[in-house]
Amino acid sequence: MAKDGVGFNEVLKALQRISNFIHKTPVITSSEANLRTGRKLFFKCENQQKTGSFKTRGALNAVLKVKETSSSCPGFVTHSSGNHGQALAWASRVAGLPCYVVVPSMAPEVKKSAIRGYGAQLVECGHLPQDRYDTCEQLQREKKLEFIPPYDHFDVIAGQGTISVEFLEQVPDLDAILIPISGGGLSSGIAIAAKAIKPNIKIFLVTPKGKKMEECLRTGKRPWDGPPQYLNTIADGIRLQQTGYITTPILTELAEKEVFEMEEQEIIDGMKFAFERMKVVIEAAAGASVAAALSDKLRAMDPLMVNIGVILCGGNVDIEHLPW
Amino acid sequence: MAKDGVGFNEVLKALQRISNFIHKTPVITSSEANLRTGRKLFFKCENQQKTGSFKTRGALNAVLKVKETSSSCPGFVTHSSGNHGQALAWASRVAGLPCYVVVPSMAPEVKKSAIRGYGAQLVECGHLPQDRYDTCEQLQREKKLEFIPPYDHFDVIAGQGTISVEFLEQVPDLDAILIPISGGGLSSGIAIAAKAIKPNIKIFLVTPKGKKMEECLRTGKRPWDGPPQYLNTIADGIRLQQTGYITTPILTELAEKEVFEMEEQEIIDGMKFAFERMKVVIEAAAGASVAAALSDKLRAMDPLMVNIGVILCGGNVDIEHLPW
Repeated sequence: MAKDGVGFNEVLKALQRISNFIHKTPVITSSEANLRTGRKLFFKCENQQKTGSFKTRGALNAVLKVKETSSSCPGFVTHSSGNHGQALAWASRVAGLPCYVVVPSMAPEVKKSAIRGYGAQLVECGHLPQDRYDTCEQLQREKKLEFIPPYDHFDVIAGQGTISVEFLEQVPDLDAILIPISGGGLSSGIAIAAKAIKPNIKIFLVTPKGKKMEECLRTGKRPWDGPPQYLNTIADGIRLQQTGYITTPILTELAEKEVFEMEEQEIIDGMKFAFERMKVVIEAAAGASVAAALSDKLRAMDPLMVNIGVILCGGNVDIEHLPW
Repeated sequence: MAKDGVGFNEVLKALQRISNFIHKTPVITSSEANLRTGRKLFFKCENQQKTGSFKTRGALNAVLKVKETSSSCPGFVTHSSGNHGQALAWASRVAGLPCYVVVPSMAPEVKKSAIRGYGAQLVECGHLPQDRYDTCEQLQREKKLEFIPPYDHFDVIAGQGTISVEFLEQVPDLDAILIPISGGGLSSGIAIAAKAIKPNIKIFLVTPKGKKMEECLRTGKRPWDGPPQYLNTIADGIRLQQTGYITTPILTELAEKEVFEMEEQEIIDGMKFAFERMKVVIEAAAGASVAAALSDKLRAMDPLMVNIGVILCGGNVDIEHLPW
């Protein structure tokens, strides 16, 4: 189970490091969802985590570990206009160290101001992926900053894995967990820790249409070699086509081969179900996992798989422009 | 502390009766809210209660108590197109007994279908308050139904009081609780149980503008004698001007005299804060209590009152037409 650089021990150490600073997020249930699916669903509310997504777990673990081991770190840098950027900004503030977040100048003002709100310094760049990497690398070199990437990083993965420890303490009888996947940090961390606690638990990945994750899991080959691209989906938290160099082999080993590929309308309906029936605000990426939980595909699976965990990965959605 | 017909013992019995059927709702916190107020706020998520509001607690307690004491009850009736109607429909289904809910024929289809969805029979009537009472009474007489009113009923009040037992177990150090008030069933129940557990806890009521609740608490006289009327407010869960015959004396004795009277815009801003920062879907009545928690009025109060409970009373809001 232990991977080079990240195993269950690292997850337990991560939990010790971060648990005083993060929320132990609630698990909620919905009898309507149970009725529709004929199973028992348990929704882990990482949408209610600090900064509105699970990303704080991994970012804070990485930041605090650097601080433990190096007394002279001048700060952190990453490139992300989304949840990881906010999380790293917040985590750096917790650690009392500066943070720089590289975002394309054309990113929405609301995202920029959220990152600034957590005390980070915004550095604007051009709109190509390569511009971000270049700007980030330059900052890293010039200011000797520690670069914390959004998913392909052992300490980030270990931090995300802390979800499993909490979740299986809250619901020990989970038979399976449904996890939305973008780069794979969340699902790798959850898989490593959950399988260590409960070896026969099943880990299912949820994606928008077109990611070809199932092919990747069956062949062990990262999907979409070549330049990183985005899927055309409303679920911006999981629009990345490629999984990581570290995360892909972990998932190939630990995740089920069947992937839940959700249509756009199903993702929106999943979001709406969470708002209307469960009274939680979730972003579209989390809507995808609700949709997977309510899908015919799950209904057709082994009926002995009764208790299903569903990760509501984030709640950062523009409530002025909901997709219905 | 014990009132004729409803004291702490009745609340404890209610909890025994209903706890297997309802959610023990989560308590969530928000560091942004704490930062803004300089206090520690704890939000009790009754919006995530069965049927989307606290009303299930009181309705189920009343229904189960009837079932315990009478083996021949042919069913229940109430008049409410709102949360109490849904709650009684749901509670009757739990008890395996028929339920009739009287609603004005012009009530929104979405509310009617929610009540039908819980298995109750809808009985339509005219649009005047008197029409509702007449239709309800007629049904009650003809079918020998048990009438369960929305708030002015000992067992309903005892059921709502179960919130305090849970809440003070989850957060034993609460110094005060902010509660939106309509007829006063929720606040009476919470006040009776909370003061029994922790005599020096302060109970604050939250209303829309124009209810004149403070005058009522200072004089002990029900506000707005005369025919029942509605306030002109977005917070439809708390638009009733009058508190009850049973609830008014309880609140006059147990609630603080200072009432939080919130403006419409503050109520909307409170709702929005809950959606955006706390990632929960709440209705406007709950938005009023969030607004009270964030208000200058609370900020100006005794700084030794540190831990403040806030009741998010319900989450039944039309997410297709949010007020922003």
